[in-house]
Order: sequence, then structure tokens, then C-alpha cells
Amino acid sequence: MSADKVKTMLLIMDGLGDRGQETPLSAAKTPHLDALACKGAVGFMSSLGLGKLPGSDVSHLAILGYDPYTCYKGRGTFEALGAGMDLEPGDVAFRGNLCTVEETSEGLMVRDRRAGRDDYRMAELYAALDGMEIEDCVVKVQHTAEHRSALKISGPGLSHEIGNADPHAEDALVMKVEPKRPDDPASVKAARILDTFTKRSYEILSAHEANQDRVSQGKLPGNIVLCRGAGFYDPPEPFEQHHGITACCVAGGALYKGVARFLGMAVFDVPGATGTAATDLAAKAKMAIDKSDEFDLVFVHIKGTDAFGHDGKFAEKAAMIEKIDAEFLAVVKDHFDLIVATGDHSTPCSAMHHSADPVPLLLCHKDARHDEATRLTEAECAKGGLGLVHGIELMGVILDYMGKAEMFGE
Amino acid sequence: MSADKVKTMLLIMDGLGDRGQETPLSAAKTPHLDALACKGAVGFMSSLGLGKLPGSDVSHLAILGYDPYTCYKGRGTFEALGAGMDLEPGDVAFRGNLCTVEETSEGLMVRDRRAGRDDYRMAELYAALDGMEIEDCVVKVQHTAEHRSALKISGPGLSHEIGNADPHAEDALVMKVEPKRPDDPASVKAARILDTFTKRSYEILSAHEANQDRVSQGKLPGNIVLCRGAGFYDPPEPFEQHHGITACCVAGGALYKGVARFLGMAVFDVPGATGTAATDLAAKAKMAIDKSDEFDLVFVHIKGTDAFGHDGKFAEKAAMIEKIDAEFLAVVKDHFDLIVATGDHSTPCSAMHHSADPVPLLLCHKDARHDEATRLTEAECAKGGLGLVHGIELMGVILDYMGKAEMFGE
Repeated sequence: MSADKVKTMLLIMDGLGDRGQETPLSAAKTPHLDALACKGAVGFMSSLGLGKLPGSDVSHLAILGYDPYTCYKGRGTFEALGAGMDLEPGDVAFRGNLCTVEETSEGLMVRDRRAGRDDYRMAELYAALDGMEIEDCVVKVQHTAEHRSALKISGPGLSHEIGNADPHAEDALVMKVEPKRPDDPASVKAARILDTFTKRSYEILSAHEANQDRVSQGKLPGNIVLCRGAGFYDPPEPFEQHHGITACCVAGGALYKGVARFLGMAVFDVPGATGTAATDLAAKAKMAIDKSDEFDLVFVHIKGTDAFGHDGKFAEKAAMIEKIDAEFLAVVKDHFDLIVATGDHSTPCSAMHHSADPVPLLLCHKDARHDEATRLTEAECAKGGLGLVHGIELMGVILDYMGKAEMFGE
Repeated sequence: MSADKVKTMLLIMDGLGDRGQETPLSAAKTPHLDALACKGAVGFMSSLGLGKLPGSDVSHLAILGYDPYTCYKGRGTFEALGAGMDLEPGDVAFRGNLCTVEETSEGLMVRDRRAGRDDYRMAELYAALDGMEIEDCVVKVQHTAEHRSALKISGPGLSHEIGNADPHAEDALVMKVEPKRPDDPASVKAARILDTFTKRSYEILSAHEANQDRVSQGKLPGNIVLCRGAGFYDPPEPFEQHHGITACCVAGGALYKGVARFLGMAVFDVPGATGTAATDLAAKAKMAIDKSDEFDLVFVHIKGTDAFGHDGKFAEKAAMIEKIDAEFLAVVKDHFDLIVATGDHSTPCSAMHHSADPVPLLLCHKDARHDEATRLTEAECAKGGLGLVHGIELMGVILDYMGKAEMFGE
């Protein structure tokens, strides 16, 4: 084992991989990434295994060395933690939207899932619900941005195995929250409490002065909170104990900050890191460099690539990769001794959703093995020396190049 | 997820892979396969994993997305189902041969394992055994072709874990059927019943008028039925529920039709699809195209490649590949949106039996990734972008390109 510190960065460019003869990675001009690929070795990363289609939350757990098949219990916890909410083991957390609903003979009909997507007096509307007591549970609500919020239910005997109130569509009825396991009292109880919360939120918000004000100004009333993505908070062994190294997270998106907090990593807010294409990558680069003395591993997440894949915008995805190259990699590439870069999954512009295709993977270190690949592209990675690395294996590869891997046997 | 139908074919060329500097795939002239390989991506498929030597039945289960380590319970069920026999859960099924045996001082000696390999009055001989009652069980017998048959034992408390009556050799004694698990009453009972059936078949057939007729015509008597390959019928979750898509099978060989029926797939008989080198591939192509509207996935099996590998006939295996190219792929290649082609295992002409070598794999779709491979050969596949796909992963890859994969996480 080397005693010298190996300054290490794990860079996840969300939804990086693509399909087709030409891809955003192959079309983009990426001199810095090319230099890293020439110096380092490339291959593919599959977060869950070939043919398995991963969500972003589950992918990140795997990449950070945690088996999502045992430790994943819904997305809501990551959203709540990422929004800065504190959770206690046993809490059930959600994402929530202030929506506009209308009473009809069939029930409450969703007319706008974002109540106009402004945030005028929405903080007050959320505050009116915060602390609601239902049975022996308490609901805490935290407004994040615009119509969005994170929520948690605290109390005994709860489960995350429940459906959503949010129908995920407009001109659709608010959904009755159903237990996914009707024979499990915890599932039944959690569903009942969220259902009660949903109904009471409508009663309270319909009568709220802030909504009368919104309507009088020609805005839609935010007259219900609809939740989705229940997550149970049951944190695994913290990252430092699990891997024997310290790590911090530099990310804009709440989900990724939430995954990092879930794993006990330090999370730093970066001014201007918005989790969008407009994110300030220079600020992220500076933060990554600043934290590289204090932490063994700096985990950096950049979201923009994924969003353009979902929108089917090839040119914009390629431009985002060029921006990462010019504004981020140009700055950090000579600072770190070990750079591992990949995506959490592929989001092909042709598919406009996540795919199971493995993602280009780069490992750059002065002692990286030679291969014939000269760029980080889907086609070049097929020639790469790293082969196919499964998500759950990646931290082991990183630890090994850091000189921090633990040997099995002697 | 795309709502558009992706017309999909999974083509299995049995025993396709080979060994050596030149292989049947590299020696064959395959313009259509070459075009698919150029347009698509290639790699390798290993049905059970590297270094694992698979049988055809087990390979097909894995390739179709079923873990053979949990759902494989002997070959006999596939043979019986493929012969059109209906099975009930708990039945034990076999392949059987009408053989010629001779009484000796040591016991019944097999003189011809196929009783001359004709089928003169063999249907009558089999019919004389059909419906035999032994203890609380019933034996059903179905003649298939020449000396061959499928058989099933129905009754309570049976197991497939028994030996064979067929010694698989001539001038060898008929084997006493032994339980493989002497401490398991079901194994003991099934062995006892098959042993009784074997002895009674000799008594009944020795005295049968059809055998006297055969002998008077200079033919060998079919005076015993010897069974092998006991299989327990315990069908897994049907394909449509398991994968969320419908599928049908276009095959000549009984085993492959049986595997498809075992998985609840629709099976179509193709006139002229014989499961041999003489099979009518144009008829198979037409059937595959005809069924591609009705079913999400058309699974096509072509047997000839394997048989030539077993016989060590390199030139004939290469010619069979050329026949597939000219008579099948030429017709179907522009019809399907997604073509995945591979073998179930390798059957190298030099080895003359199955090998554990991974099999060339092709995925052709308009959005397939680019790689540098221009043909589907063992050497070109080493340059392929698909890498090594395990059998159990393959259906996930297919579903992903069909836009039908289910996401884990969000």
C-alpha cells in the first residue's frame, strides 16, 4: 500500500451513454477528455448488469458500492435528504407537488400538476400543512422550489410500500393511496395516513387566504399536495466504514445530494450548481479541487447530459459534454491523481428514456494500463482495457488504484 | 417508453460457435449476415457463463430468461411437450426407443438400440403399451418417428431423479432403473415404476403379433421400450407474465418446441421444418414474418449447424450457415426492426461435442451502437461493442431495445 495520498475524483455525468452510429460523445469536441482517455484506460460500466434498466437513484447506490437490491427502499428518502430535511430511521419520505384540483362528480380532478409552476406564496401554503398530526404520526413538510416539496411522515410502524396520490397526469383523478402489501399492517397504515394527509391538505389549502390571493391575481390555486415516490429511511453502513475512505459530494441535483447524505458522505452546496445545463461548472471544479485535500474521494455529479437525453436533444447533449470538457475537466484534470469518469446509466436521445446499455467508463491514473482507445466514446470503449465493470465493482477498482483496497486472503 | 411496435426476432442457430483460426462462420460467404453485423453491434453470448458447458435444453432456458439452476428438472418434459403430449404438474416424462433385446444368462442384452431404425408397425407396438397402469400411476406413450417415442408417468408422489433403463450402447445390458436419491420416496417410487414398465414392455412386445410379422419379414423385433432423460413437469411463470411480452416459437426440432411450450409460448408447426440440414428455411422465414404482427417476439430455432458440429463436418457446417444466410436471413432481414442472432452454445467441429466457448452474438437495430466488427465471426466478435452477454441477461437486452424493459428505481 502506498502511503502517499492519491487525490481521487469520481465524476458521474448523468445519462452519459447513448446509442447509434454517432453519439453525443463521439460528436462532441472534447480535447481534455480525449487526453484523459489516451493517458488512461477505458471500458464500460453497467450499474446493475447487462439488460437491467436502472433508475438514477439505484444506479448511484451501485456505483458507490452499495447493493441496491438490499438497500434501496424508494426514492423519497433521497429527495428529502437532498432537500436538507433530517430523517430518523423508520420515517417515510416523499416528493410532493402543490397542484390545482377541481371537485367533480367523480372526485378530485387534477387540472395542473404544478399549480401554474410559480412560487407565489407557496411557502405559506406548505407551512400551513407542516406539523400535521394524523393518528400517532406527524407530517413534516419542506418547500424546496416553485411547486415542489419534500415531506416525511414520522411515527411507529410505517412502510414505504404504498402507492402514490399523484396520478402523474392532468385531467386525471387524485389517486386513493393504496397499500402495496394489503396484508402488511405497516403498508396499510402508511397508505391510510398519506391518504388522510392528501384529503386534509385539500381542506386546509382550499380555504387558505394565500390561495384566495393567488386566484384574485389570476394565478391557479395550489389547493392540494400530491405525493409520490415513498421511501423508507433505513440507512446502510456509512461510506467511511463501508469503504475505509472519506468522501464528499459536489452536486447540484437534490437526488444526488440525498444519495450522498443517505450514505453518510459530506455534501457541499455549490453556489450556481443548479442541476441543470446552466450549472456553474467552474464553481463545481473549484469546489472539487478545494475539497480534495480534506477528503479521500470527491464525488462530482453533473446532471445536464441526462436531461438532454430525455428530451431527445442530441446537439444539446453533445454541447453539454463540450461544456463539461471545457469548463470542468480543463480545470480539474491535472489536479487529481486518479480520475474515474462515467455515467450512472445511458439515456439515448433516440429512446428519450434511460436504457440498459452500458456506459463509457474512464480510469485515468499515471499507472493506468495501455489500451488502443483514444477517446471516451461508445465505439472506442469497445476497444478498452477495462472491459465491463459492474456498478457494484467500481468502488473496488477505485480503491485499488488509491492503494486502499483490502485484500482477501494473503 | 415508445408505443411503436418494434418487430423483434431472436434467432438461435444451434451450436453456432466454433474453435480454430478459421471457423465455419469465418469460412462461410454470408452477405446478409455481414450487412447485419455492419449495421448492428456484435459480441459474445455465454448461456451459463464462461467455462460452463451447457446442454441445449438448459441453454435455451437461460437465453429465454429463465434461470436453469432453479427451473431445469430434466430433459424428458421438453421432449414430451415438443412431441405434442400434454403434461400435468407432477408428471414425469421421458424419451423412449423401441429396441431389440435378447435374453442372456446375464439379463436382457441390447442388440439394436433402434430395432433396425425403420417404423414398420412400430405405432402398433407402442399402442400396445399406452395406458399401462402400475400401482396408482398410468403410463402414456406417444410414438413420434421411426423407433422413437415420448412417454409420461402420471400419478402422485413422483420424482425425475432416477436413472435410465437405456444403457446408451449396444451389447450392453438393459439397466435396472435406480433412484438417484434412495432416501427420497418419490425417487424410489418413480424408479420402481419405470423399471416395472420396462419389464412389462418386454413381456407384452415379445408376444406381440406385429413383432412376429416384423421378424417374418427379416426385420428386427422391437421387443422393449427403453427410456432415458426423466424430466419432472413443474412449469415456471409463463413467458408473457415473466417478461411482459408475447412470444411464439418457429422451430423444427421437438426439444426446442418443447422448451417453448414449457414456457407457455405459442408454437407453430412449419411444414418442411425438419430440424435437419434439409429443413425448409424459406418456410421458416415466411412463418417468422407471418407471426411478427401477432407476437411481440418471434423466436426462431435452426438446428442444422449443431448436427454438423457434432459430426465434425466443417464444410457442411459452413454450408449450413450459407444456407441460413441465403434462404432465411435474406428474406427476414429487412422485415424486423430488431434482430438478435446467436447460438445456444458452441459445437466445435474439432471437438465434435458442445463446448463452453461463448457464441458470436449480433444485435441489429437502427440505433445499435457502432463497433469496428464487420462480420459475425468468432474473431470479429472479439472487437464487438456488446461485450460478453450472459444467457440470463440476453432477454433484458432485447426488452431494452424493444422499449419494454422495466426500470428498477426511478
